[in-house]
Amino acid sequence: MDPEQIAKAFVEHYYTIFDTNRPGLASLYQDGSMLTFEGQKLQGGQAIVGKLTSLPFQQCKHNVSTIDCQLSGPAGGMLVFVSGNMQLPGEDHLLKFSQMFHLLSNGQGSFYVHNDIFRLNYA
Amino acid sequence: MDPEQIAKAFVEHYYTIFDTNRPGLASLYQDGSMLTFEGQKLQGGQAIVGKLTSLPFQQCKHNVSTIDCQLSGPAGGMLVFVSGNMQLPGEDHLLKFSQMFHLLSNGQGSFYVHNDIFRLNYA
Repeated sequence: MDPEQIAKAFVEHYYTIFDTNRPGLASLYQDGSMLTFEGQKLQGGQAIVGKLTSLPFQQCKHNVSTIDCQLSGPAGGMLVFVSGNMQLPGEDHLLKFSQMFHLLSNGQGSFYVHNDIFRLNYA
Repeated sequence: MDPEQIAKAFVEHYYTIFDTNRPGLASLYQDGSMLTFEGQKLQGGQAIVGKLTSLPFQQCKHNVSTIDCQLSGPAGGMLVFVSGNMQLPGEDHLLKFSQMFHLLSNGQGSFYVHNDIFRLNYA
């Protein structure tokens, strides 16, 4: 698969898990992984998934608008940049967001999320 | 300087050059650098600066709202994620944007932009 296809498949996979089985995101992070969520920094899969599963909403639906990707350089990683919106239960208003992921090889033919930065885009 | 300070200094430097002397951005990119600008992919400092200097506005003013940064892994780079808005001449309406940079060492004690992804956040 070319990088664009990998990025698209990763993004679909990530938000499907987020929206249907958030604890399952643990499989995508490792101990060295970092998340910056609305400015809050977390490190390690356990802390990251702890944060994501304790967000103050149970259900949500991500709608992806754009996916951009680039190879990240000598370490053989891939950068994925997403824009879209989130729908929360009982809310008509959509929350626009931007998120970037840096994917690195897990040494087993697949990628894990080494870097994850999430920001809401306030209107 | 710690990574947060480097990221802040880089962001101020980048947008000051962009807003006052756009051709000067050439010093921040190298041949292997990549820019994805609103989905259009460019590679190499010359192509990137050619794109940025041919945007259909002469003057602009970037206002930065948030800066997030993380170390990007084994290659010793740094990821910088910016949100903010742009003001174009004669336009009251501000254009919201998100942009990410992957900075790598230039081998001379400083960083260059290896990856650059820019998206407007349409309201």
